[in-house]
Amino acid sequence: ALNAALDDLHAADIADILEQAGPEDRRRFVALWGDDFDGEVLVELDERVRDEVTGLLANDVLVDAVKELDTDDQVYLVEDLDPPERDAVLSQLDAADRIALEQSLDYEEETAGRLMQRSVVTAPLHWTVGEVIDFMRASTDLPDDFYEVIIIDPAVHPIGTVALGRIMSHPRATPLSEIMNEDFRTLRVTDEQEDVAYAFNQYNLVSAPVVDGEGRLVGVITIDDAMEVLEDEAEEDMKLLAGIGDETLSDRVLSIAKARFPWLAVNMVNAIIAALVISQFEDNIQAIVALAVLMPIVASMGGNAGTQTLTVAVRALATRDLTSANASRIFMRETAVGLINGAGFAIIAGVVSFVWFGNPLLSVVLGVAMIVNMLVAGMFGILVPLVIEKAGADPALASGTFVTTVTDVVGFFSFLGLAGIVLL
Amino acid sequence: ALNAALDDLHAADIADILEQAGPEDRRRFVALWGDDFDGEVLVELDERVRDEVTGLLANDVLVDAVKELDTDDQVYLVEDLDPPERDAVLSQLDAADRIALEQSLDYEEETAGRLMQRSVVTAPLHWTVGEVIDFMRASTDLPDDFYEVIIIDPAVHPIGTVALGRIMSHPRATPLSEIMNEDFRTLRVTDEQEDVAYAFNQYNLVSAPVVDGEGRLVGVITIDDAMEVLEDEAEEDMKLLAGIGDETLSDRVLSIAKARFPWLAVNMVNAIIAALVISQFEDNIQAIVALAVLMPIVASMGGNAGTQTLTVAVRALATRDLTSANASRIFMRETAVGLINGAGFAIIAGVVSFVWFGNPLLSVVLGVAMIVNMLVAGMFGILVPLVIEKAGADPALASGTFVTTVTDVVGFFSFLGLAGIVLL
Ligand SMILES: [Mg+2]
Ligand SMILES: [Mg+2]
Ligand SMILES: [Mg+2]
Ligand SMILES: [Mg+2]
Ligand SMILES: [Mg+2]
Ligand SMILES: [Mg+2]
Ligand SMILES: [Mg+2]
Ligand SMILES: [Mg+2]
Ligand SMILES: [Mg+2]
Ligand SMILES: [Mg+2]
Ligand SMILES: [Mg+2]
Ligand SMILES: [Mg+2]
Ligand SMILES: [Mg+2]
Repeated sequence: ALNAALDDLHAADIADILEQAGPEDRRRFVALWGDDFDGEVLVELDERVRDEVTGLLANDVLVDAVKELDTDDQVYLVEDLDPPERDAVLSQLDAADRIALEQSLDYEEETAGRLMQRSVVTAPLHWTVGEVIDFMRASTDLPDDFYEVIIIDPAVHPIGTVALGRIMSHPRATPLSEIMNEDFRTLRVTDEQEDVAYAFNQYNLVSAPVVDGEGRLVGVITIDDAMEVLEDEAEEDMKLLAGIGDETLSDRVLSIAKARFPWLAVNMVNAIIAALVISQFEDNIQAIVALAVLMPIVASMGGNAGTQTLTVAVRALATRDLTSANASRIFMRETAVGLINGAGFAIIAGVVSFVWFGNPLLSVVLGVAMIVNMLVAGMFGILVPLVIEKAGADPALASGTFVTTVTDVVGFFSFLGLAGIVLL
Repeated sequence: ALNAALDDLHAADIADILEQAGPEDRRRFVALWGDDFDGEVLVELDERVRDEVTGLLANDVLVDAVKELDTDDQVYLVEDLDPPERDAVLSQLDAADRIALEQSLDYEEETAGRLMQRSVVTAPLHWTVGEVIDFMRASTDLPDDFYEVIIIDPAVHPIGTVALGRIMSHPRATPLSEIMNEDFRTLRVTDEQEDVAYAFNQYNLVSAPVVDGEGRLVGVITIDDAMEVLEDEAEEDMKLLAGIGDETLSDRVLSIAKARFPWLAVNMVNAIIAALVISQFEDNIQAIVALAVLMPIVASMGGNAGTQTLTVAVRALATRDLTSANASRIFMRETAVGLINGAGFAIIAGVVSFVWFGNPLLSVVLGVAMIVNMLVAGMFGILVPLVIEKAGADPALASGTFVTTVTDVVGFFSFLGLAGIVLL
């Protein structure tokens, strides 16, 4: 009965159900489904839940599940297995499959070599449409997903691609050389997965041949896998900007608390630096308590404006819309935006504080500090990620903390310092 | 010479060059390239730059550029044209193309009806592999990108799909009914583009038939367009979380300043509310200035912890990993994480403030306020997006401001209030 119900569900939906269930329900589910466990479900699971499930499965069930997968999915699964499980799986594969899998695992994580599917449909340049169709009809192990035939020369270098739709719309006698696309994009095994996803997105690729150091065809990456990477990379940036690392929704309380701790610790250092700045002006605050009331407004507006600029910059760097060609223009623009909005909110904040405290000089001090801080926010919001990127690091990584430290320090310093000069 | 150089570049790269150039260079470029302007480049351009470029192009050049595009790209372009340009383009299309385009534009923006490609390769159920191949060989207007043939019944309802690779790997005599996939996903013209992107990502689709209200096939959506949507939606969430609306990198200074202003205004209200809380405790601050020095630490840590939880929640709602099935478990978990990290940083902050001010009671007050605020941050970080989603709005939209308002108010109130009770 369970088997019948599960047959109607897509593997990704079964994976979601498993992820959302508690550990007890998961155990019961695996015990019930047991021997028929579908490898596709393992591929769709979160890493944490997958670890749990593979631990519950008998080794031969796990091996069967892995065997039925495409080679790219096999790599994706096996790379995350614990060493004993990994060895168990590898040792029970055919020699050819095992060696191929081990070769894939030799490539660095998060590279095209790991993402690619090893079984590729290829044809020599001299074939005709009829010959390639006959070849496919005779093949017994075509990959599940393929959209193009890759034309290779005798040294196995890819020299063109032909979309399946193009093959099917030409007469049998047409030589492939006449209908092939020579203007295709080739990926290298060592390309980082971010660059792979970028190429698919930028050039509207559906699949792309992958070559080794000698330019020989070793695999192909299809768009569904590139789409997964593209989404993962966008999610990674979104999380890094918020100070979250590599956690998933199914992680346990303690591992999540631990993963978030370092980010909060960095923020704590930032907050202490801001507190040190404030403490330099204790006398001013003692003299005019309104300063303590108003100072968070300056810091908060700067922090927000900085985060806006920063997010735009990090995103534009990821999509490669922000490059050395326009960096200085965008910097000027963000500076100008900071100045304009700084002036706008200086007036608003000045009026509010005048109504509240009735002190025109205090309003002027607040307004000037606001302009200074939002201007600085715009400048650092773009400079910080540019510098981090230039230094070879991920601009999403620590930018947020840098920028808010700057806006806190500048905000408190300019407001409290100016107040000391003007009001005391 | 320009034409030769541009021939080697992909339309997306030409679009990037145009986006990154200044307005003067763009004008010169359009004047030089003029009559041969490639419609694909228009499709790849940012809306702002595209508006500028279509304004520079002669109407007949624009019409020619639109004519050569696939129907989905025509819709994508024409929907954003100014009414006079739109009418000029529509009036110069063939009657059939014009009516089809107008029908597509009748669907709501950001729905499957707008995204789909109208020319679909279909076959009746009784055809064989040979018949569908012969049909394709005889067709002169196959779409540029297609990966499946859709099997329809006499009332034009889709009843199955056959991947091209499957067709080509079977003998000519094989009936399509034997090799078709009956377990395919159908989209409706009214489906929102977010749901379209979700379906492609979740079910690893490469293309999906789109049906109208009567279940009749009216178009097909391919993965490259779904990938674009998936990325746009992730980018939208990332930007909303940072308080940025629908701006692009090529927008002008004033329009960007204007677009960001409302978000900053909401933050200003938040900051004023926080200031009002502080002002209730002016006497306490006057008595112990150290309170003004330390209070931003409590607020900042709460804001950060809240943003962490919030970002995880918004992302998990978007990927549908956070559902009613696990919401209460995730709420409990975030509460626990808030408590654990709150306790950790209570100790750290307490020690720091003791070293700094030598007042053990002050340290206790700081620590308790820290625990309270980080606990509240975890709870509201998950509750706010859940409630906004439940209310039918976008959980990424205003969550950030709600959460930081809560953590600012709770942070200042608990720290300064408790200080008044314990220390004065
Ligand atoms: Mg899932
Ligand atoms: Mg993996
Ligand atoms: Mg694209
Ligand atoms: Mg794959
Ligand atoms: Mg990465
Ligand atoms: Mg990244
Ligand atoms: Mg671009
Ligand atoms: Mg672009
Ligand atoms: Mg559009
Ligand atoms: Mg998927
Ligand atoms: Mg398209
Ligand atoms: Mg949307
Ligand atoms: Mg959204």
